[in-house]
Amino acid sequence: MIKRPFILVTNDDGVYAPGIKHLWQVLSKVADICVVAPASEQSAVSLSITVRHPLRIEKIEWPFIEAEVWTVNGTPADCVKLALNVILPRAPQLIVSGINRGNNAGRNVLYSGTVAAVIEGVMHNIPGIAFSVSDYFNPDYEKVKHYIPSVIHYLLSHPLPEGTFLNVNFPKHTETGIKGIRFTKQGKEYWTENPEQREHPAEGSPYYWLGSKLAQFDEDDDSDIVLLKEGYATAVPIHIGDLTHHTSIKECRKTFENFVNKPLA
Amino acid sequence: MIKRPFILVTNDDGVYAPGIKHLWQVLSKVADICVVAPASEQSAVSLSITVRHPLRIEKIEWPFIEAEVWTVNGTPADCVKLALNVILPRAPQLIVSGINRGNNAGRNVLYSGTVAAVIEGVMHNIPGIAFSVSDYFNPDYEKVKHYIPSVIHYLLSHPLPEGTFLNVNFPKHTETGIKGIRFTKQGKEYWTENPEQREHPAEGSPYYWLGSKLAQFDEDDDSDIVLLKEGYATAVPIHIGDLTHHTSIKECRKTFENFVNKPLA
Repeated sequence: MIKRPFILVTNDDGVYAPGIKHLWQVLSKVADICVVAPASEQSAVSLSITVRHPLRIEKIEWPFIEAEVWTVNGTPADCVKLALNVILPRAPQLIVSGINRGNNAGRNVLYSGTVAAVIEGVMHNIPGIAFSVSDYFNPDYEKVKHYIPSVIHYLLSHPLPEGTFLNVNFPKHTETGIKGIRFTKQGKEYWTENPEQREHPAEGSPYYWLGSKLAQFDEDDDSDIVLLKEGYATAVPIHIGDLTHHTSIKECRKTFENFVNKPLA
Repeated sequence: MIKRPFILVTNDDGVYAPGIKHLWQVLSKVADICVVAPASEQSAVSLSITVRHPLRIEKIEWPFIEAEVWTVNGTPADCVKLALNVILPRAPQLIVSGINRGNNAGRNVLYSGTVAAVIEGVMHNIPGIAFSVSDYFNPDYEKVKHYIPSVIHYLLSHPLPEGTFLNVNFPKHTETGIKGIRFTKQGKEYWTENPEQREHPAEGSPYYWLGSKLAQFDEDDDSDIVLLKEGYATAVPIHIGDLTHHTSIKECRKTFENFVNKPLA
């Protein structure tokens, strides 16, 4: 165990969001922390990177907190890239992202900017953890803080395989409290679109909000979706190193040759 | 085999990019096509969706081409969401994205907007194919068109497993031409950042371009990266349905309990 590990903290709710300050507070007691977070909210930007305009880095202060904090006017992945190459004095042992307002369980992982920051770290072979709370309107960051050090401690002493990170979600707060942490698998549920057409107030021309609604499925009892509803925090090892569906390759090789150079019609 | 399948065509290079017109041309001979593509270039936006501002849908015309074409002022995933919910008269049998200018092989898949459009389709249980050419500066769309119908034909009659799509890359054009198509696995190479600091012309304040350079690795001979360099087109079945690293769960369950509620320091 590294006595005081050096940790990069980021998020997608933006550098002034309450969740990242709570995360800093619990981690700064036991680690050297550098915060590099988006200047504005970047929810649902996925692993988007900014290739068509330049970025600015700004050192800022959080009122009443003695923290090292930088902002980047880009995405969470941009923040990690500039942190590793320009801002940080040395490579961090760990990237911790969050605490996100709203859950990133199930198949929300690929849309989430919170998770994307950790994916960007994994691309650079740096281990990472994403933390999210399953309550968008009344997130209780204070209640979940207790569980964070043990997960950090564990991951630093038991590295996950290459290309793998940990996606941690906390349940909605109930009077009985969090029942514990469960290492488990990704469920299927995710936030999908629910478009709504409106009209421009002056022109009357139509515009659309993507909107959102839960896409729900039959879930296995040991999925993060079900366990969160039962009041457990969930920790899912997510692998993005090799996304090939290997069993399909053989099947495709066998059956494709009849189609080669055959016209569609 | 469906006689004239209904196909949604999109991309991330934007609705006026040459690649998508070439794709339309080859597909429209054998399928009913609707194009819904970003109004402006959306390279490297990944599975980003637009949740913080409204979107507009516009029907446009491509000069000299009798196509059904709409634009959305958002990302490729936004295009797919609005196509499926608002624009298309019925669900498409297939989503085809591209032809992208520049390759999306190896680990570029998670950054690519071209691939993200197909991922969004898979989230809606619609099969998809992403097409890209490995030549950013001199893409030869004409030379690769010959190979597209057989892949489309094949995928429509041999569906991939749920949560899986096909990522097709064409090699850089050489005098010997494309050697054939190989179903194979994802390599490791990807475009990573190479930041460059510049100064504002009037203020002198610093700004940064993320820049890019190839992150290269030891690659297996049967990876898409190696086969593309040898002159083959590559077709990789990519699975995004369950990203859990299942073997890690057991290991974590065994070793984590000693850490529960243990403080970090």
